[in-house]
Amino acid sequence: MSATLELLKDLIGRESVTPKDEGCQDVLAARLAPLGFNEERLNFADTQNIWLRRGDAKPLFVFLGHTDVVPTGPLEAWQSPPFEPTIRGGRLYGRGAADMKGSIAAFTTALERFLTKHPDHEGSIAVMMTSDEEGIATHGVVKVVEVLEARNEKIDWCLVGEPSSDKKIGDVIRVGRRGSLCAKLTVAGIQGHVAYPELAENPIHAFAPALKELTEEVWDKGNAFFPPTSLQVSNIHSGTGAENIIPGSVEVLFNLRFCTELDEETIKQRTQAILDRHGLNYAIQWRLSGNPFLTSKGRLIDAAHEAIKTVTGYDTHDDTGGGTSDGRFIAPTGAEVIELGPLNESIHKVNENVGLQDLETLSAIYEQLLIKLLA
Amino acid sequence: MSATLELLKDLIGRESVTPKDEGCQDVLAARLAPLGFNEERLNFADTQNIWLRRGDAKPLFVFLGHTDVVPTGPLEAWQSPPFEPTIRGGRLYGRGAADMKGSIAAFTTALERFLTKHPDHEGSIAVMMTSDEEGIATHGVVKVVEVLEARNEKIDWCLVGEPSSDKKIGDVIRVGRRGSLCAKLTVAGIQGHVAYPELAENPIHAFAPALKELTEEVWDKGNAFFPPTSLQVSNIHSGTGAENIIPGSVEVLFNLRFCTELDEETIKQRTQAILDRHGLNYAIQWRLSGNPFLTSKGRLIDAAHEAIKTVTGYDTHDDTGGGTSDGRFIAPTGAEVIELGPLNESIHKVNENVGLQDLETLSAIYEQLLIKLLA
Ligand SMILES: [Zn+2]
Ligand SMILES: [Zn+2]
Repeated sequence: MSATLELLKDLIGRESVTPKDEGCQDVLAARLAPLGFNEERLNFADTQNIWLRRGDAKPLFVFLGHTDVVPTGPLEAWQSPPFEPTIRGGRLYGRGAADMKGSIAAFTTALERFLTKHPDHEGSIAVMMTSDEEGIATHGVVKVVEVLEARNEKIDWCLVGEPSSDKKIGDVIRVGRRGSLCAKLTVAGIQGHVAYPELAENPIHAFAPALKELTEEVWDKGNAFFPPTSLQVSNIHSGTGAENIIPGSVEVLFNLRFCTELDEETIKQRTQAILDRHGLNYAIQWRLSGNPFLTSKGRLIDAAHEAIKTVTGYDTHDDTGGGTSDGRFIAPTGAEVIELGPLNESIHKVNENVGLQDLETLSAIYEQLLIKLLA
Repeated sequence: MSATLELLKDLIGRESVTPKDEGCQDVLAARLAPLGFNEERLNFADTQNIWLRRGDAKPLFVFLGHTDVVPTGPLEAWQSPPFEPTIRGGRLYGRGAADMKGSIAAFTTALERFLTKHPDHEGSIAVMMTSDEEGIATHGVVKVVEVLEARNEKIDWCLVGEPSSDKKIGDVIRVGRRGSLCAKLTVAGIQGHVAYPELAENPIHAFAPALKELTEEVWDKGNAFFPPTSLQVSNIHSGTGAENIIPGSVEVLFNLRFCTELDEETIKQRTQAILDRHGLNYAIQWRLSGNPFLTSKGRLIDAAHEAIKTVTGYDTHDDTGGGTSDGRFIAPTGAEVIELGPLNESIHKVNENVGLQDLETLSAIYEQLLIKLLA
């Protein structure tokens, strides 16, 4: 069994459902200490974070990952238990196989090989792990970055191990992410009886035209790097179930995934203009979960392209799609950030898996990347 | 203490929250038996119904009422306990005082006085009571009417004791009611992640334009007897609370209060035309809770006007507003139906009450009505 596979099986066996770590970070720390990595624990609230750094020379290359996984979903839908790593048909099945314990294992063994051959490489290397990327992420990477910033410890290149690949390993890397802005909107009316609508104000009726406008709004046209900004209403709730009561309010949750053509303030203004135009009595709470970021030039992207080409022979595609990742906390520090990891087809689903060959290829790509940047 | 007040206090003291009767119908049966009323119990499921008839001559005059009351609401908001009838400032407080134990007491004493003076009146008189008017009303008057229809027992005039009065007793009688049609609509989409809207179909977005149209539709303009038909959305629910999931469906409840310009079939067709025009994938369940009815001419309305004028000196106004009542089950048999009872200002609220003088006036009006129709 390969060293990468062995390590991955150990990690999958730990039920680190977010925000639990279940000893995954201990395993990494024990593995990297002999290679000269200093260990620093940066735990906040229920979240475990670790910062392992080898050397202090510039430039600093960081591998960023998360040891937590999403819940299993219905156990009966798994062909093998989610926390018992199981090989079937050339693939390893288990929760976290692709998102992202596979990347963690692949990077760890890549490091071991690289440092054996290049103990005196240029710059320095760090590994940053959190146990809360899949949850609300308020005590994870965002806090670690605050600590680093406070002591002026600057990251130059950040490789996030998120599963970026589409059809084959390394065919896509992410060089940016859209921003994400959540809104909780409450539109107030006046409760009453359906038989006496003239004594009530139905908030569903009042909101309907504004809802239509919000869902039809063309926010922007995107740009060369990003698809157009998209608004999605995720929840709408009004009424207690009674058929004859006009409800007193309607509550709506919506989210915007926005590109670098827009900013938080503009979105708020345009949304509130729509609500105001319809004369609504409303309250709105906004929560920015991340600004868009883009790594459009610099050494890191080129090195990734070269490393993938060297190992696989094919060209890779730069992309900015998908959800948010912890990369959003690193990019504002001025670091170049990319995401490169396994195929994302099975993530967050039952029967999550990673190809055994993909795992070795990924480890080889990570090693090549270290060579191109630091050897 | 007046006989009407004494009887009303007895009835309010019984906690007959729908569909309970708590012996109210026993009290009436015991009171009417000496006057020559035959007693017939027509209980169905959890509902108690009683049919008390005196004589079998035509025309048949029926007093229709319900012994159940709506729940109390917050007890701490009552100035005196809801099931302890309490007099304050010339008014009797207690759940059911106005809706409609007051009418029942007033009619019972009116009957006693009328029959003492006119034992050999024309036609015949019946009292129909149910313990489920305030609930779903599936085993109440609708079932009793089925029994009567099956044996061809025809009602000519029906006086419903529902609280019709607005500012002073008898200023308004109801001569009809709007119909009520409920719909439960489910619009299906395809669940997904807000970051990948192109892989999902947001049912809230799909429904928004149709919702706007439904709430803005002008169904009709009403007519001389009825206000325009009104649609009210009472509930809309979609999403499980998660901010990043595009929901798979949206569920909507709405209700139409419709006048005699429209019928059930037309409403269904027009609603479905709107939904179809927006290409929605939907399922809809309809429930007719009552067709509109109108007693626009006949002896009963005239007699009511005369009786009110005789007792109070003022003219009364014919109205068709408000919710539904059990009158909707009687009207289709061909009977003339009116509703005449206490002020409706406090019904279904805390501190429900009836004026002591109103109670006596109402009893006098009921007696006059019997005199005008049957003496
Ligand atoms: Zn992940
Ligand atoms: Zn009532």
